[in-house]
Amino acid sequence: MPGVPPTRFVYLGPEGTFSEQALRTVPAADRGVLTPARSVPEALDALRAGEADAALVPLENSIGGQVGVTLDELANGEPLIITREVVLPVQFVLAAADDRSLDSIRSVAAHPQASAQCRRWLREHVPQATVVDVLSNATAAIGAGTGEFDAAVCAAIGATRYKLHVLAKDIADNPDAVTRFALVSRPGPPPPPTGDDLTTLAVYIAHDRVGALLAVLTELSVRGVNLTRIESRPTGERLGRYVFFLDCGGHVAEAQMGEALQGLRRICADVRFLGSYPRASNGDPPPRRAPGLSDDDFTDAARWLAQLRTGT
Amino acid sequence: MPGVPPTRFVYLGPEGTFSEQALRTVPAADRGVLTPARSVPEALDALRAGEADAALVPLENSIGGQVGVTLDELANGEPLIITREVVLPVQFVLAAADDRSLDSIRSVAAHPQASAQCRRWLREHVPQATVVDVLSNATAAIGAGTGEFDAAVCAAIGATRYKLHVLAKDIADNPDAVTRFALVSRPGPPPPPTGDDLTTLAVYIAHDRVGALLAVLTELSVRGVNLTRIESRPTGERLGRYVFFLDCGGHVAEAQMGEALQGLRRICADVRFLGSYPRASNGDPPPRRAPGLSDDDFTDAARWLAQLRTGT
Amino acid sequence: MPGVPPTRFVYLGPEGTFSEQALRTVPAADRGVLTPARSVPEALDALRAGEADAALVPLENSIGGQVGVTLDELANGEPLIITREVVLPVQFVLAAADDRSLDSIRSVAAHPQASAQCRRWLREHVPQATVVDVLSNATAAIGAGTGEFDAAVCAAIGATRYKLHVLAKDIADNPDAVTRFALVSRPGPPPPPTGDDLTTLAVYIAHDRVGALLAVLTELSVRGVNLTRIESRPTGERLGRYVFFLDCGGHVAEAQMGEALQGLRRICADVRFLGSYPRASNGDPPPRRAPGLSDDDFTDAARWLAQLRTGT
Amino acid sequence: MPGVPPTRFVYLGPEGTFSEQALRTVPAADRGVLTPARSVPEALDALRAGEADAALVPLENSIGGQVGVTLDELANGEPLIITREVVLPVQFVLAAADDRSLDSIRSVAAHPQASAQCRRWLREHVPQATVVDVLSNATAAIGAGTGEFDAAVCAAIGATRYKLHVLAKDIADNPDAVTRFALVSRPGPPPPPTGDDLTTLAVYIAHDRVGALLAVLTELSVRGVNLTRIESRPTGERLGRYVFFLDCGGHVAEAQMGEALQGLRRICADVRFLGSYPRASNGDPPPRRAPGLSDDDFTDAARWLAQLRTGT
Repeated sequence: MPGVPPTRFVYLGPEGTFSEQALRTVPAADRGVLTPARSVPEALDALRAGEADAALVPLENSIGGQVGVTLDELANGEPLIITREVVLPVQFVLAAADDRSLDSIRSVAAHPQASAQCRRWLREHVPQATVVDVLSNATAAIGAGTGEFDAAVCAAIGATRYKLHVLAKDIADNPDAVTRFALVSRPGPPPPPTGDDLTTLAVYIAHDRVGALLAVLTELSVRGVNLTRIESRPTGERLGRYVFFLDCGGHVAEAQMGEALQGLRRICADVRFLGSYPRASNGDPPPRRAPGLSDDDFTDAARWLAQLRTGT
Repeated sequence: MPGVPPTRFVYLGPEGTFSEQALRTVPAADRGVLTPARSVPEALDALRAGEADAALVPLENSIGGQVGVTLDELANGEPLIITREVVLPVQFVLAAADDRSLDSIRSVAAHPQASAQCRRWLREHVPQATVVDVLSNATAAIGAGTGEFDAAVCAAIGATRYKLHVLAKDIADNPDAVTRFALVSRPGPPPPPTGDDLTTLAVYIAHDRVGALLAVLTELSVRGVNLTRIESRPTGERLGRYVFFLDCGGHVAEAQMGEALQGLRRICADVRFLGSYPRASNGDPPPRRAPGLSDDDFTDAARWLAQLRTGT
Repeated sequence: MPGVPPTRFVYLGPEGTFSEQALRTVPAADRGVLTPARSVPEALDALRAGEADAALVPLENSIGGQVGVTLDELANGEPLIITREVVLPVQFVLAAADDRSLDSIRSVAAHPQASAQCRRWLREHVPQATVVDVLSNATAAIGAGTGEFDAAVCAAIGATRYKLHVLAKDIADNPDAVTRFALVSRPGPPPPPTGDDLTTLAVYIAHDRVGALLAVLTELSVRGVNLTRIESRPTGERLGRYVFFLDCGGHVAEAQMGEALQGLRRICADVRFLGSYPRASNGDPPPRRAPGLSDDDFTDAARWLAQLRTGT
Repeated sequence: MPGVPPTRFVYLGPEGTFSEQALRTVPAADRGVLTPARSVPEALDALRAGEADAALVPLENSIGGQVGVTLDELANGEPLIITREVVLPVQFVLAAADDRSLDSIRSVAAHPQASAQCRRWLREHVPQATVVDVLSNATAAIGAGTGEFDAAVCAAIGATRYKLHVLAKDIADNPDAVTRFALVSRPGPPPPPTGDDLTTLAVYIAHDRVGALLAVLTELSVRGVNLTRIESRPTGERLGRYVFFLDCGGHVAEAQMGEALQGLRRICADVRFLGSYPRASNGDPPPRRAPGLSDDDFTDAARWLAQLRTGT
């Protein structure tokens, strides 16, 4: 029901990963039931089936880029909308079943993206260790817990959950790496505009030509709608057919975004609205609108048009 | 009063010119009072002062181009709007006080634009005659009537009014030349849309730069509004400062024109609305809209947006 | 012959008009032969026929706008190019056959554009006088000289030539009014770039649609070529067919203008090059280029491309 | 040395994956030495270090999308260029250590992307089996060979190499799925144009704003350069900073591509050229150029400009 906060949450599991950590930053999750899913499709299917009220899944990482499976799942199947974004610093730890010296470590379990992000640290601090690829950060933690591996690269929450000793903190080569997650719901009224919102769209263009993409960007540009992200994903039909995911500054309830969305709807083969939600602050001020493109300018222009139409 | 047809008409005189002929094609003029004015400013001042209900003035000629004084008068002073356009074939006659042979003609009075449009005919048929510049077509007819000149190049209506003999008809070198006139009123509700209308605007851009004009055209283009005419006139401040007169396909009451007008209002230094009125048919079918830019497409997009906003 | 300054000049007569005054600002005219022509077509025909080496004709006035006949003559017939522009303040005088009081003046001869530009002054200083339209500023001066009219509105040079007394100077309502003239030659190498030049073009677009004009402006915009003037003139075929006259900042010899011209040549139905010549200073600094669009940026990009092509 | 075909090839291993299969379609690889690398970075580092003459790495899959690590490695480090693309149908097989009935299979090893692409087939034909995620298609084949798993989803070449029995062929849900690979070299002259080539670029824009991306697309569009792919990758600095990978129709040696590249070089923060190479035919005819944008149009425009500059 609109207005009722979700109480049943599903997230990309297993327990002890960054997704759980991201979900725990959402206030309503404190009093809710949190269930891990084995995969993004499973999480979103549970939401679509009504088994959960909201799902938390990763969208992109500032090092690793897009999370293709999430984008694909949002673009296909029953419509869902993003109601919140969570941007989480990705701080990796090196953890082991007991407190031991780094010199003594011979094998380190790590998800390939995690070891990639910690490559320099691992080379400097545990040069003698073999890095073994595993399928998730939680798998790595479990493997260290059982002694299959001497240590694991994992999230802090994973070390806690699997009762590991943290041997080193903040071991990522880029200390500013973040992952961006989406809290997703079944369709309903979007959260109210805050003055600094994002709107996410999946856009299909008739032909994957420069002209068609130019037309899409022009629809945004003439309304002063800024584009903060553009990702392409294959539609699966063949090479060269893409769906574009756009993150635009603004909210569907605002005049300029409304006009831009109508423009896209008219010229695109298809547009799927994936939600308007508050931008997670990164410390930057919200972007300023160009002259003539403020809310007041839209209001003034609408009033002027009404006068022209009645001749007053 | 809106809806009441005008009864007092003023037009660019003197009597017996193409302007009177154009005005007589307007049905309401049959039962109205028609008064010539000495100039376009005088005609429009009479309208502004409430001494007339409508004024008929020339806008452009297919050979001679813009009628600058009309454009300047519409852009400045109290706002007026065009409610109708009249496109009149410009058929010149050679007329004289009595029926005489072409060989006997030694002098021909003509307005410079008229003699320019009949240059080839005059050279072939009255090569012996001197062409004397006069200030209007009616002045030429009057001069032929008084015998000051042997003959005059004038409009058929001028020959009739000044009781001249028509020595030759259709003497313009380009038989398809036309003049376009505007019937102008004080502001009021525009005539209802017909499905094939024009909207005329005077547009001031902040800086006379390629970027600013590009932005104006883009506002039209993204809404599928076609531009059938663009004229520039100096604003009088200095060289390089222009006001642009645009004729756009569509009506202020229509969704796409409304959106385009609001866009121009937002980005331009000033926009003066000069009326929406039926296009005078030139035999061409009305231009088709590009895909995604029909009225239905606008209606569909508005409905879709409403659904997104309520989450239904 | 290229490089040899012109010695035989023709200009829009009669003698004693602003055109002669403008021509006398051209250094080579001091030692040349100056011949008035009865009209712009006559002046340019004399040039085309080899009877003159250069012609001086008016292009536009900051109050009256385009001089249509000049634009039409440059767009049609044998190609000619502009080699110099002259911008002349339009300072009108009131002159009479003898020194007399303003109170005593009953009739003033004036070209309609001249009386329009002095309307306020005439109303305030000679309210009792009838203003009589005549066909040129020189005709007005001649009429005052013969006593046909009590006074004339004319150029200072006209008062001098026809030996009139100047009763009042600087009588134009707008003291900053200027007329812009072009010095025209038969085709040849353009004058060398000065760093602040203009290039004039006549551009025909396939269809007079917003999209086609947008494409023209885009070709300029992407090369950072600024547009300082755009005029439309009918092609004469029918209403709604125009040729556009563009004044662009830059010189045909420069890389960015060269690229822009090639772009226009490719997409337009026709482009006629009407010359590159130094901009007449109006006191403003030359416009700055946007980032990435300086000559150095063009040179750097060309060098980079050459390296890519050879793989070095 | 330019012109000398490469003889030492490195490819994304292990042996028996689609990368090896793709490399074996390159004629020169027949007579060359082929070495597997453990990862894309390792393959490209070997190339940069001079230990190999060419590297074959995956770029994108028509189902799974971009191969982020390849894009990142091409955008960073010492420049490399693509000299050839290989598009390979992705045909999966189900293979086992010996010939056995599908009913008897209890566990299937598969790389997560492989099992995702065969989901429907597996559900229909081996519903009783548990699918176990492993880290590569080759790992799956090895696991089936050792008996750790009853069967593996892998490439045909993997079944051959690890001496497995193929139980079922063409088991992918989408029979048209393909992977696109790049053959990469150290910088040198690109292969000659064939009339149907692609050029790949990595483009950094000053600010990730709609206006900047619009400007990039406009540079391509005005030269008639078509865009067949656009991918974004994070630059790693922070969320919202991207590098764009563009595949454009045309060859660096051609006039229009040359002009477009220079335009991008001027307006972008940085452009890295990643090669011009023949398009792998997908059966479609090469795209036609828009009017005015053929090679002949470029040649004609260059000749015209040369004439304008000399005044001939």
